[in-house]
Amino acid sequence: MTNLIEYKSASNVYNDIRTTFQTEYINNFWKDLANHPHSLRRTWETLKEVMGGEGEIDPLTRELIYIAVSITNGCEYCIASHTAADRAKGATEKVRGELLAIVAAANSTNRLTNDHQVPVDEQFKI
Amino acid sequence: MTNLIEYKSASNVYNDIRTTFQTEYINNFWKDLANHPHSLRRTWETLKEVMGGEGEIDPLTRELIYIAVSITNGCEYCIASHTAADRAKGATEKVRGELLAIVAAANSTNRLTNDHQVPVDEQFKI
Amino acid sequence: MTNLIEYKSASNVYNDIRTTFQTEYINNFWKDLANHPHSLRRTWETLKEVMGGEGEIDPLTRELIYIAVSITNGCEYCIASHTAADRAKGATEKVRGELLAIVAAANSTNRLTNDHQVPVDEQFKI
Amino acid sequence: MTNLIEYKSASNVYNDIRTTFQTEYINNFWKDLANHPHSLRRTWETLKEVMGGEGEIDPLTRELIYIAVSITNGCEYCIASHTAADRAKGATEKVRGELLAIVAAANSTNRLTNDHQVPVDEQFKI
Amino acid sequence: MTNLIEYKSASNVYNDIRTTFQTEYINNFWKDLANHPHSLRRTWETLKEVMGGEGEIDPLTRELIYIAVSITNGCEYCIASHTAADRAKGATEKVRGELLAIVAAANSTNRLTNDHQVPVDEQFKI
Amino acid sequence: MTNLIEYKSASNVYNDIRTTFQTEYINNFWKDLANHPHSLRRTWETLKEVMGGEGEIDPLTRELIYIAVSITNGCEYCIASHTAADRAKGATEKVRGELLAIVAAANSTNRLTNDHQVPVDEQFKI
Repeated sequence: MTNLIEYKSASNVYNDIRTTFQTEYINNFWKDLANHPHSLRRTWETLKEVMGGEGEIDPLTRELIYIAVSITNGCEYCIASHTAADRAKGATEKVRGELLAIVAAANSTNRLTNDHQVPVDEQFKI
Repeated sequence: MTNLIEYKSASNVYNDIRTTFQTEYINNFWKDLANHPHSLRRTWETLKEVMGGEGEIDPLTRELIYIAVSITNGCEYCIASHTAADRAKGATEKVRGELLAIVAAANSTNRLTNDHQVPVDEQFKI
Repeated sequence: MTNLIEYKSASNVYNDIRTTFQTEYINNFWKDLANHPHSLRRTWETLKEVMGGEGEIDPLTRELIYIAVSITNGCEYCIASHTAADRAKGATEKVRGELLAIVAAANSTNRLTNDHQVPVDEQFKI
Repeated sequence: MTNLIEYKSASNVYNDIRTTFQTEYINNFWKDLANHPHSLRRTWETLKEVMGGEGEIDPLTRELIYIAVSITNGCEYCIASHTAADRAKGATEKVRGELLAIVAAANSTNRLTNDHQVPVDEQFKI
Repeated sequence: MTNLIEYKSASNVYNDIRTTFQTEYINNFWKDLANHPHSLRRTWETLKEVMGGEGEIDPLTRELIYIAVSITNGCEYCIASHTAADRAKGATEKVRGELLAIVAAANSTNRLTNDHQVPVDEQFKI
Repeated sequence: MTNLIEYKSASNVYNDIRTTFQTEYINNFWKDLANHPHSLRRTWETLKEVMGGEGEIDPLTRELIYIAVSITNGCEYCIASHTAADRAKGATEKVRGELLAIVAAANSTNRLTNDHQVPVDEQFKI
């Protein structure tokens, strides 16, 4: 089991996380990453920019995309933590049901094209 | 290489696809599936409902979620055909760039939690 | 691109492959592996025993299981070579269509259980 | 944790599941899916047809193929529930051992072809 | 839950494992595989040769490669048992942090090339 | 097909890549990412630090770990480009053969533990 790092030893990133999310609570994900300070800083900077920075995709849709990948990869922790995040951003049970149906359909059709290597249509090659 | 089935032998589903998408063109994906009529019908009914039916998630977001899964699974055909679909629904190059960044970040963090089996925070267990 | 190794330098394993399959032809898979003689020998011994040895599962079913995994992993070479093998063992287009439908369904339902971590039923824990 | 839906709110599909399997018991998988009635109905219709409908592949072999995919994807729930199903259809411990050996071998050889992108043999391109 | 096989029924392989690792203890992995004696023998022979045999890659690096694959596949047991092994061979927490960072980066960039199917540079095709 | 971005529009990162690798040549991977300047900068900063920064794991071992993940995920571009990189850092054909054997073995054993959910040994839970 991992050693979860509390506040003192990783204060700069933790402070930025707390300010960004406006909460005292630090997720176990960050407390584990804090064992490797470079990874903590790099991962936080990437997620802060990708999930929270300026952009055309709205915050809730970003969470849905993130969860779609996590469900496909079977990442229990990621599904749990981002489900909390998407609820906070307004996802209803109905939206989650629709998301799950799309993920299930895509994982199915992704394999249906593997059978005989269906050739890509000319008009898609642009 | 697969044997792509032209119009006659799968006319009912093909007609519905043409009416739904308002085009004469049938993608190779369907022409390949038509070798197995049950799979053609079932897959079409599922995708029609999941990607095109009533729901709270808008059509462009559905395409983004579908592509996020396909990129994670490395399905070349699915990425190509749904990229055409998301462009038709208004995705700019900028949106696709943001989508790709989220997918890349999620595939990365999905593995960061696998190291020492980070415990799920109590507050996420609801 | 790999350097495909012809007969001389890997003669013992190649001879056994030829005798087992009763053909002069050596697949590119083996000619590539022959760059690493230990891997060639180990892989051949494993596949010979697992796919061709004594057992309760019949040879065609073994091919179907092998292809199901290869479709899930998206291994183009493996799908192509084992499709040839399953045809040689009697798989019709209809059987392949049914196989593909099961693989697609399983890849779909495998993700449906990832949403909220569906608890395993007590009666399955035996 | 998911909210498992009991009988009343999903009675039509549940009744069909009970009739089909000739049991009062509904698996947690269905009770979870029942949160999204469309997904429940669609998934049941697909599985009923693919795993239980007419076809050339016998019921036990279908279970083995389903489990092979689930082991490859690491789906704990799916492995547990379909192991119960394959036992009910006659799979011995020996059959399961052989299945596992094929799945392990395929997952291994699937990657061996990825090294230098082994070219597909001309004779397989049919 | 699996039936873990104790000493008597698998004595030859167990003895070799004990001699090789110089310990009385047999991991649950082997005790589970012992339900299928052929798989136990084959898997032991392969791992003994690949992870412990002659070669240019040193033992600790072999463990790091093995864990990198296991983290990518999300295999909890494999990560746990080989983390014990890499510590025994000298991996510090810092090394493990660096390993995890490489695995996370690779899982990310592996998907970045899937977007528009980046063409392989001519100079890499050798 | 992607639009590969030449020098001018991404000059800062391209200059750093050229200085770091001491070559005029920019890989297609970067030219594709340059369509999304934020992703280009972030990905370059991460890879530069993870693959080329200070650390206890030597540069060749980092490449081997990176390739092990890429083979597992079946990323053709990544395998091709990092094979060129590992050769430049001294990997012989023999080393690559050993790497491939470890990756194949790990992908196999990763699934062998999925069968009946082998319990993690108490001594590994530290």
